[in-house]
Amino acid sequence: MESKITPETSGKVINCKAAICRNAGEPLVIEEIEVDPPRAWEVRIRIICTSLCHSDVIFWKMNAGPFAVFPRIFGHEAVGVVESVGEYVEELTEGDIVLPVFLPNCRKCRDCKSQKSNSCSVFPNNKYSGMPRDGTSRFKDMKGEVLHHFLWVSSFSEYTVVDVTHAVKITPEIPVEKACLLSCGVSTGVGAAWKVAEVEEGSTVAIFGLGAVGLAVAEGARLRGASKIIGVDLNPEKFEMGKKFGVTDFVNPATCGEKPVSEVIKELTDGGADYCFECVGLASLMQDAFRSSRQGWGKTVLLGVEMHGSPLTLSPYEIQTGRSITGSMFGGLKPKSDIPLLAKKYLDKELALDAFITHEVSFPEINKAFELLLEGKSLRCIIWMDH
Amino acid sequence: MESKITPETSGKVINCKAAICRNAGEPLVIEEIEVDPPRAWEVRIRIICTSLCHSDVIFWKMNAGPFAVFPRIFGHEAVGVVESVGEYVEELTEGDIVLPVFLPNCRKCRDCKSQKSNSCSVFPNNKYSGMPRDGTSRFKDMKGEVLHHFLWVSSFSEYTVVDVTHAVKITPEIPVEKACLLSCGVSTGVGAAWKVAEVEEGSTVAIFGLGAVGLAVAEGARLRGASKIIGVDLNPEKFEMGKKFGVTDFVNPATCGEKPVSEVIKELTDGGADYCFECVGLASLMQDAFRSSRQGWGKTVLLGVEMHGSPLTLSPYEIQTGRSITGSMFGGLKPKSDIPLLAKKYLDKELALDAFITHEVSFPEINKAFELLLEGKSLRCIIWMDH
Repeated sequence: MESKITPETSGKVINCKAAICRNAGEPLVIEEIEVDPPRAWEVRIRIICTSLCHSDVIFWKMNAGPFAVFPRIFGHEAVGVVESVGEYVEELTEGDIVLPVFLPNCRKCRDCKSQKSNSCSVFPNNKYSGMPRDGTSRFKDMKGEVLHHFLWVSSFSEYTVVDVTHAVKITPEIPVEKACLLSCGVSTGVGAAWKVAEVEEGSTVAIFGLGAVGLAVAEGARLRGASKIIGVDLNPEKFEMGKKFGVTDFVNPATCGEKPVSEVIKELTDGGADYCFECVGLASLMQDAFRSSRQGWGKTVLLGVEMHGSPLTLSPYEIQTGRSITGSMFGGLKPKSDIPLLAKKYLDKELALDAFITHEVSFPEINKAFELLLEGKSLRCIIWMDH
Repeated sequence: MESKITPETSGKVINCKAAICRNAGEPLVIEEIEVDPPRAWEVRIRIICTSLCHSDVIFWKMNAGPFAVFPRIFGHEAVGVVESVGEYVEELTEGDIVLPVFLPNCRKCRDCKSQKSNSCSVFPNNKYSGMPRDGTSRFKDMKGEVLHHFLWVSSFSEYTVVDVTHAVKITPEIPVEKACLLSCGVSTGVGAAWKVAEVEEGSTVAIFGLGAVGLAVAEGARLRGASKIIGVDLNPEKFEMGKKFGVTDFVNPATCGEKPVSEVIKELTDGGADYCFECVGLASLMQDAFRSSRQGWGKTVLLGVEMHGSPLTLSPYEIQTGRSITGSMFGGLKPKSDIPLLAKKYLDKELALDAFITHEVSFPEINKAFELLLEGKSLRCIIWMDH
């Protein structure tokens, strides 16, 4: 049996820096906090770098409702090193490079075992509290006040504690900042093109919203050999950026005049796109995407989480003429088995990840990452914890 | 080369009996009519027997809007013998046993050639007028007034003229009244289970509406080895009938009390049915079906044509947790290639068709078929033209 080197910090509370959100929409404040040791089925991770995803911003702005919980540590795209593990943790050990991910993957339930699902049924992610499975926090500020977790990850901290079902071991060969991208947005987009839509060679694709997720859909569709990849975005600057990811045609709804976007796309695709993706999170745009899909077999995939909680209204007749609408979390990928496959595709120079990283900042500059994303200037801004 | 026997009637107008609907909702009147010879790409068919489908009843009741066109000859489930063929018709000849079907199948367009579609793009069936491709009628009454076609078939007539894209040759080995069932409702249900949902062994199924289409879904699901087939219907008499088609569990929404049907189905299926089918045509029931589908991979298939033109409202979040909603006409089947396969499965004693025929009447009794269907007493009433 291998001797297990236990770090000096193992089993002890760690004092470190974290970026705290004390009130909705306010700049994060870097403070010293206490991070508890991992409990059973948990690992404590030293974050190497993290990045900012739109979902962080949505919950950061949220000032009412059951999910508006403060003070809180945001962040759910990251890569780190396992510092110590709790009782019963067998698949990970100190020193492993891991991605903490919001989507649980127990690998034992009916869903985790099925090829058709990535929606773990033992640890459903239907509570946006994102607290550990026992519901208590591993974070406290220096006054002893509890700091809330976010999406089971809370990576805007030098150290975090995550459930083992939320941690994916990854090869140390992949540069950490590229690995970081695989923990949410980029995987979601690529997975949606590959596993949910199953885009095939020669097909036509329309992507509504050219943020990181939308561009990752384009990258996935490009690798699958799509013949036409139409990007739809109100920001004309996204069009040049899109070309790097395989986007071949652009539609700016603001310059379509009286003509609905769906009509423009139908003209570009001889009747409608084979696959449409909504990557913003607006019910009206989901309708546009659906209407842009081809009769006979057009498939619309919902990726954006509807930001106003609005319902989606569709025409049953348009469904019955051979269209479908579907969705998934995390692009239908199973974190523990699929993220390592994406990492391999990057290392094999198939999957292009580099262009997603448009900015890099040090941890004390974390609020700059928010500004860049809010201004539509960045795709992904890597936040280095030790710089 | 075979000698081609041309019938005496070929090229001439035929006088025969038809059941005319002169005004919405009024009993049909059997009258003598004139049926023109087939034009190019058309065949004239002597109907042997026909049956009544809910879609006939919906359009028969319709007293306003562009589709309320009278006088009209309804009927679109039938079997007959080709009496004569028009110019350019090569695939059919006099004496062939054929099913006239509402869904066109040109076999040459991108959709007809694709494995993913049955929605012919050269002759789209998006006009419910259902007139021949040149827009003119082949029927006149004895006063010379034009009688309108219905769904390209108009089988409530001793003779009808249909486009060759709407006629499917079928083996004479299958009893005609069983063949008749394959021209609309039964094929739609079986096809939806096999080709649209792709029900697999051990899966759970919920069927909303146990008419002929819903029971055909059950028959299709039973043959695919579904472990649980839940029928939902307000008519308790449908429950005994359902057992013949493999229905294992019943839910009557009227006796569920405060509990939504979707909750009852979730309890019966440990979280939701793998496949849900709406076979009535009510947006509210489509919602119930969707809500009854399992998170992770639940698929809802829309078969009923929404009878009030109401939109369908869904929760984007419930789609994103791994559900999908889809639809097709005619159960995703391609008439010319798939109907002969279903006929073979009947002859091989795999597919049970007999129990769908609950009543038989002679042509002069055609209004009785309407009464039986409206009272929920019949699944399919065969109307024999020469009895």
